[in-house]
Amino acid sequence: MRKMKLTLAYDGTPYHGWQVQPGLPTVQGELEDALGRLLDQRVRTRGAGRTDAGVHAHGQVAHFETGRPIGVDALHRGVNALLPPPIRVVGVEEAAAGFDARASARAKTYEYHIWRDPVVSPFRRDFVHALSRSLDGGAMDRAAAKFVGVHDFTAFSAARAQVVGRVREVYDAGWERRGPDWVFRIRANGFLQYMARTIVGTLIEVGDGRIDPEDIDPIFDSRDRRRAGSSAPARGLHLMSVEYD
Amino acid sequence: MRKMKLTLAYDGTPYHGWQVQPGLPTVQGELEDALGRLLDQRVRTRGAGRTDAGVHAHGQVAHFETGRPIGVDALHRGVNALLPPPIRVVGVEEAAAGFDARASARAKTYEYHIWRDPVVSPFRRDFVHALSRSLDGGAMDRAAAKFVGVHDFTAFSAARAQVVGRVREVYDAGWERRGPDWVFRIRANGFLQYMARTIVGTLIEVGDGRIDPEDIDPIFDSRDRRRAGSSAPARGLHLMSVEYD
Repeated sequence: MRKMKLTLAYDGTPYHGWQVQPGLPTVQGELEDALGRLLDQRVRTRGAGRTDAGVHAHGQVAHFETGRPIGVDALHRGVNALLPPPIRVVGVEEAAAGFDARASARAKTYEYHIWRDPVVSPFRRDFVHALSRSLDGGAMDRAAAKFVGVHDFTAFSAARAQVVGRVREVYDAGWERRGPDWVFRIRANGFLQYMARTIVGTLIEVGDGRIDPEDIDPIFDSRDRRRAGSSAPARGLHLMSVEYD
Repeated sequence: MRKMKLTLAYDGTPYHGWQVQPGLPTVQGELEDALGRLLDQRVRTRGAGRTDAGVHAHGQVAHFETGRPIGVDALHRGVNALLPPPIRVVGVEEAAAGFDARASARAKTYEYHIWRDPVVSPFRRDFVHALSRSLDGGAMDRAAAKFVGVHDFTAFSAARAQVVGRVREVYDAGWERRGPDWVFRIRANGFLQYMARTIVGTLIEVGDGRIDPEDIDPIFDSRDRRRAGSSAPARGLHLMSVEYD
């Protein structure tokens, strides 16, 4: 069997997230359907992370195994010809037998886009969260820095998530302002369910003055999801890249 | 009566062009419906130009008249609250009584986007024409320069268009390459129906080697639509701005 590594970009708007769900359009479902038709075999893929409904990706990674002798270029062209236009395979590689898109991932980077003008560009409307009210950008910068480092993210992830450990290391987190587009970029060794969106939702409440930057460390310590902000909407979130050794 | 000037941006994908057509969704139809509901009166608008089905705008201009005493800011917020998200009013001004969005226009600028990579970004797919085959960019640059100046554009416009004069002045025309995105920008004192798309279609045939840059002047002289290239697809065309004195 050969292990194939795919890098994907997708507009998450029309999909119920990455993960296959019977009877619903999902990115993984479309990908497995396209690969299955191309290779004339049942294909099961594994993604680096399960993006939620409406979340976008520029560099999601997935792997699958096949015994078919198809070339990398033919696979790349063929799968894109069969996929719907909101989903594109942007890279194909043959990977080592031990590669696993999820387990081998060393870091992921997400961006979150907040559109600060009351008039939202028609060309960006599905890819940003529109929020034109006054926000304290300086406080949001100070609070963003509090997320860098090794923390237990229990307070900043889905309360119902069933995972063994909730400690993650954030390597970088900060805001970049590009005109009306405020971009939060966060790079970490892993993300719990809703973690990126809950961090952004908390930073928005900091911008509103409802949470103080100095409250972030006590919220970590509390491990209480109710003390963090609400999750920011999916449409503003973009999985930018997944890093491997 | 007050004369109001609106500047609009729209994603043309879901619309059958600018101009009102009974029973079909059009940008002008949506705009007149929103203004009519806001002002509680029948509103008739006039646009600077009639963008075709699927063509986008960043700075279309339209005017209308009203006797209502609504403020500029209230009009701006109110019309955007009633418009569908693919259409946004980006500016509102009260204009002089003699202003006419179409007749007073002194220049318009269009951009046309060709996506040169075989993999089209999911985030750009509705806004570019995908064309990854080899093109002679140098020949396309030389041919673009031939369009600058005063010309009779009969060969480069809809054969069936009923207009009195077909002479227009092009102030600037040229390509800018931004990675996979080749952008043709053209600024002229006016555009005939399909003129921008026919010029781009002709430049693509120059890129393919089927038309020589030296053929452009003889095509102007022929005034024969059949000698120019076919019209490039609507999705790549963007009305960027309309200039007034």
